[in-house]
Amino acid sequence: MFYLLDIIGTCAFAVSGALTAMNKKLDPFGVFIIAFVTAVGGGTLRDILIGRTPVGWMRDLNYVYLIILGYFLAIIFRKKLDRLRTSLFLFDTIGLGVFTLIGLERGLDTNLHPVICIALGTMTACFGGVTRDILCNEIPVVFRKEIYATICIIGGILFFILKRWNLDNNVLYLIVSSVMITIRLMAVKFKWYLPALEPK
Amino acid sequence: MFYLLDIIGTCAFAVSGALTAMNKKLDPFGVFIIAFVTAVGGGTLRDILIGRTPVGWMRDLNYVYLIILGYFLAIIFRKKLDRLRTSLFLFDTIGLGVFTLIGLERGLDTNLHPVICIALGTMTACFGGVTRDILCNEIPVVFRKEIYATICIIGGILFFILKRWNLDNNVLYLIVSSVMITIRLMAVKFKWYLPALEPK
Amino acid sequence: MFYLLDIIGTCAFAVSGALTAMNKKLDPFGVFIIAFVTAVGGGTLRDILIGRTPVGWMRDLNYVYLIILGYFLAIIFRKKLDRLRTSLFLFDTIGLGVFTLIGLERGLDTNLHPVICIALGTMTACFGGVTRDILCNEIPVVFRKEIYATICIIGGILFFILKRWNLDNNVLYLIVSSVMITIRLMAVKFKWYLPALEPK
Repeated sequence: MFYLLDIIGTCAFAVSGALTAMNKKLDPFGVFIIAFVTAVGGGTLRDILIGRTPVGWMRDLNYVYLIILGYFLAIIFRKKLDRLRTSLFLFDTIGLGVFTLIGLERGLDTNLHPVICIALGTMTACFGGVTRDILCNEIPVVFRKEIYATICIIGGILFFILKRWNLDNNVLYLIVSSVMITIRLMAVKFKWYLPALEPK
Repeated sequence: MFYLLDIIGTCAFAVSGALTAMNKKLDPFGVFIIAFVTAVGGGTLRDILIGRTPVGWMRDLNYVYLIILGYFLAIIFRKKLDRLRTSLFLFDTIGLGVFTLIGLERGLDTNLHPVICIALGTMTACFGGVTRDILCNEIPVVFRKEIYATICIIGGILFFILKRWNLDNNVLYLIVSSVMITIRLMAVKFKWYLPALEPK
Repeated sequence: MFYLLDIIGTCAFAVSGALTAMNKKLDPFGVFIIAFVTAVGGGTLRDILIGRTPVGWMRDLNYVYLIILGYFLAIIFRKKLDRLRTSLFLFDTIGLGVFTLIGLERGLDTNLHPVICIALGTMTACFGGVTRDILCNEIPVVFRKEIYATICIIGGILFFILKRWNLDNNVLYLIVSSVMITIRLMAVKFKWYLPALEPK
């Protein structure tokens, strides 16, 4: 179940990376690299920081195949993506929830403090998108719009609160990711965003 | 003493990151991430390159708290920062000296050649600012203005020259950081800078 | 022989980095850093991802000396580089072939799957240039023009096909790098490039 969601999330992130890169008129190789980096960037940074090497996608080729799948899906359906935008957004939101949970669990495996685990969860979910935007020469969207990363932090805090109740792991994951997905859907529907902090 | 200076440096770097990010009109989360990265980016890159994982700030939560402190200081005093510019510059300069020394010591601990240790010291002091500028979509200021990194290299060379005299470590640190701070203050006062190397 | 080519490649990459940085009117330190990163960036990322730390250039000072050499060559000959452009391009192409082979071998040493080894080879050859372009605030040229990375992938596939024949390693290296160099020379001569993938 968890692995299935991870697969959907990886694939959705790859599609979102490929679409951004095609908007920048990159060549097919550039589009593939951006798709790859968007999908595995967050987990890779996390694994490097905690010293879990070779990093995840090097040990499990399924990630590579999924990204290739997402890449071709994006190319094939790129003319119809206006109609698919809603499904893509939904997959991306599932990825957000799942990737945060994976980051939290990796942090716990490494015996890190909850605060650091939440940082790892947020990083796993957000850093792929940050790298995508840096490679496309833009200020990362996660720093400017939507309450994307804030949702990861809320999810992380909820995770540690519920953790104390000794819930079954699957129940815990289900609750945390449902709450995160709900907040994101409401955030987009009702246009919640953080105001910019201006210097003066 | 050393630890105290490290604290001041971390906090000053966080403030400087937060201010840059607010100038770019990022949202509060973006500002926090830029503050974080500016403060720990150099040490993180150093730790990754020498294989000292989990990286420093994951093992000592004090860094996280200091960055949160710097973040709120920057937000609260952002309207008064013209008056505080001098103190901020001073803290930043102290950070420059201390971070270089920490990088040098980590290199020695890993039994690396003095040339590599100087590279690590320079990296620890400068890379946070480089990442800050990349995330804000600018050519890193350290590559364009001021003789910032050059001071780190001078400090590193001085460190290894003095090291031969078997000075007490505290005396050694004090001399090296005083020299670096003095050079920077003079560099800014007398507008020393390296001329651009133009292609033709 | 292999080591000699590695030396030529490192030096050529350092020259290419220094030239790009001088075009951006960076100061001498900035130019040096860009030269350094262009030359060792790919190998450094590869070593970090597979957990081979301290990374390569920290263990063998010859890389540092070669980069310093390339840096000064670029500065001294910068006014005559129009005439030297062909030799520079040739060195860069040799670097491309050699760096790909080094990446492939490191992947095999770490017992990684051929697909991952090819990714490591491509990364070793291309990531230095990617970092150079990010630091200079441009969309990486490898994502936009020329069939640079595609050649690395072709070379990698050829490497594993030939590997099955139990050729002598030197013969294997020679064939793979000759094929890669030939393709690149022809690609530039006949203006082969990948068309941009446009969203609509």
